[in-house]
Amino acid sequence: MTFKYELIKESKECNARLGKVYTNHGEIETPIFMPVGTKATVKTMTPEELENIEAQIILSNTYHLYLRPGHDLINEAGGLHKFMKWNKPILTDSGGFQVFSLGNLRNITEEGVTFTSHIDGSKHFISPEKSMEIQNYLGSDIIMAFDECAPYPSSWDYVKASMERTTRWAKRCKDYHKNIENQALFGIVQGGMYEDLRKESAKQLVDLDFPGYAVGGLSVGEPPDLMYEVLDYTVPLLPKNKPRYLMGVGSPDYLFEAVIRGIDMADCVLPTRMARNGAFMTSKGRITIKNAKYKRDFTPIDPQCKCYTCQNYSKAYIRHLFKENEILGARLATIHNLFFLINLMKNIRISIKEDNLLKFKDEFYKEYGYYTKGGVN
Amino acid sequence: MTFKYELIKESKECNARLGKVYTNHGEIETPIFMPVGTKATVKTMTPEELENIEAQIILSNTYHLYLRPGHDLINEAGGLHKFMKWNKPILTDSGGFQVFSLGNLRNITEEGVTFTSHIDGSKHFISPEKSMEIQNYLGSDIIMAFDECAPYPSSWDYVKASMERTTRWAKRCKDYHKNIENQALFGIVQGGMYEDLRKESAKQLVDLDFPGYAVGGLSVGEPPDLMYEVLDYTVPLLPKNKPRYLMGVGSPDYLFEAVIRGIDMADCVLPTRMARNGAFMTSKGRITIKNAKYKRDFTPIDPQCKCYTCQNYSKAYIRHLFKENEILGARLATIHNLFFLINLMKNIRISIKEDNLLKFKDEFYKEYGYYTKGGVN
Repeated sequence: MTFKYELIKESKECNARLGKVYTNHGEIETPIFMPVGTKATVKTMTPEELENIEAQIILSNTYHLYLRPGHDLINEAGGLHKFMKWNKPILTDSGGFQVFSLGNLRNITEEGVTFTSHIDGSKHFISPEKSMEIQNYLGSDIIMAFDECAPYPSSWDYVKASMERTTRWAKRCKDYHKNIENQALFGIVQGGMYEDLRKESAKQLVDLDFPGYAVGGLSVGEPPDLMYEVLDYTVPLLPKNKPRYLMGVGSPDYLFEAVIRGIDMADCVLPTRMARNGAFMTSKGRITIKNAKYKRDFTPIDPQCKCYTCQNYSKAYIRHLFKENEILGARLATIHNLFFLINLMKNIRISIKEDNLLKFKDEFYKEYGYYTKGGVN
Repeated sequence: MTFKYELIKESKECNARLGKVYTNHGEIETPIFMPVGTKATVKTMTPEELENIEAQIILSNTYHLYLRPGHDLINEAGGLHKFMKWNKPILTDSGGFQVFSLGNLRNITEEGVTFTSHIDGSKHFISPEKSMEIQNYLGSDIIMAFDECAPYPSSWDYVKASMERTTRWAKRCKDYHKNIENQALFGIVQGGMYEDLRKESAKQLVDLDFPGYAVGGLSVGEPPDLMYEVLDYTVPLLPKNKPRYLMGVGSPDYLFEAVIRGIDMADCVLPTRMARNGAFMTSKGRITIKNAKYKRDFTPIDPQCKCYTCQNYSKAYIRHLFKENEILGARLATIHNLFFLINLMKNIRISIKEDNLLKFKDEFYKEYGYYTKGGVN
């Protein structure tokens, strides 16, 4: 089977849609949230636990795997799926975002990016071709074009030049990438917060005819309303018969608003990072478990939640684990937060099917509030 | 059901024996190795994972639970089993060993021990009665008398006085402990490395008629042969119809030698602590996974092992996890090491049944070697 997107239903209320993505490692129901397994492991979790919480696809990071253990080693192991024992779909990013985040440790030219490893100070060069080579070696089902994610805020001139280079790089990625039977290459729309540039970027990438498209350069510090505005005018420019992926978004409010604007896929380290800090997403809002008020609270984190953590353990016990830095605490929190978002997306899919997503959103917000104004990019 | 020990078979070759311990939370086949869950969690593991590796009983620490989260809180939660969701037997130590390990932070009198918390410097007092009260609150199936574990080496005079006080304290524990239907109180034989004192201690404790006996004060830095010698003359003094527990022992060689001398139960943090440092017990000896030679080794940690870790992951992947400090690494190592010792004890039980324990030991040593000369007390 080769990669395919099937549009199942468009909402009558908004731009939300139900779909299915087909890959060689299985199907993905969209809209979907993708847990992040930066270094070939979703932190604290086994693959079986990810299956138990119904994760359908995970994301892993090209930059980190390139540096350690090395894409050649993972290739020798039989690819990333086999290396980490995850047999469902994997999406890898291009390494671009991490490389650009290195700030003055990197230097951009038309050819690619030279950078200094954050681990050992060694020098490296990643070009569009190199990013494709690495991702080909990793063997992920969905791979991303090597782009530049311009910082926020940036001038129109800067973003224009960066966006145009991103298009040229996307073309080079497409030219280099040969394993199209097994790996779907997505283009990434850039253009910062400028409507004309977003439109131009979308047009140029759509002309290159990728099997899927991401919206990059959002959730990078801009106000939420600005992100929503960009999605409002960008997403409708993307083909209906291709999946649309919003990069780096994972708070419940961002997910709702993105889906309403036509996004099919999203990823973020937010739920797993929050978990390791003892912060839980619940149907009544955010819980910081180390808070003294939970010391003798023998009720579950979220009495409405069906996850392993909430079915078995009390706040008092989980608080004890976090106070003692016990690894089981981070495990239980990760299971809960990922389950929470995956389950939220499942309910979002049901509400799209039933054309009551907006009502579901209102009810959710009433209990939950907006605890975060952003992702963590 | 109340606590009971059933002697099933005595070896024809040595003092090893097969037995069964009955508690309100289930049966324990002996000889048995008990994983340690110091702070109400066997580090990195869920209760279900412990069941999967066939752990039949775990140990938890009175001293740590008394300080945090507090035995009153655990009592409110419905006891330790319910608090940590482990429904099989639990043994708690008396707190004595940890308190005495505090060195100059504690002061011993006939009444009990005054000490300063290692966490916040607060002052505390634990007497035999207090240790019983704490363990009664915890609700563990087997509780230990409050003893003094004399340091090694200590003079005959010191050990004699300490041993005699331990007997007086054991009697006070017995007098205070009322919940005998649900919690079996074990006496602890002390006497250092002095044969006359060990014999005297054993006699005095046997006179007090406890449902089980521990041998304490071993694996505290003495040469292995000295420990074996002490076991040689101490264990035969203990009643045949009661279980015998050697405290703080968990290396394969110590376990073999203890069982051969008539020990039924043992515990140690060794397998779990080694695991978190990336050290694996295998049928061919010890593996330190961070070693560079495993970088591209795509075979399992121990090809003969049936544990989850060895059935699913390569050395190269586990090494990557440890190099990146990923929590999954510590999890996979803990599963393996505990499985290794629990499975070893299972095979030891089979070999007692078949009267070929000594041959099994020789074959095991031939492949494994003696990688450690001691426990970790």
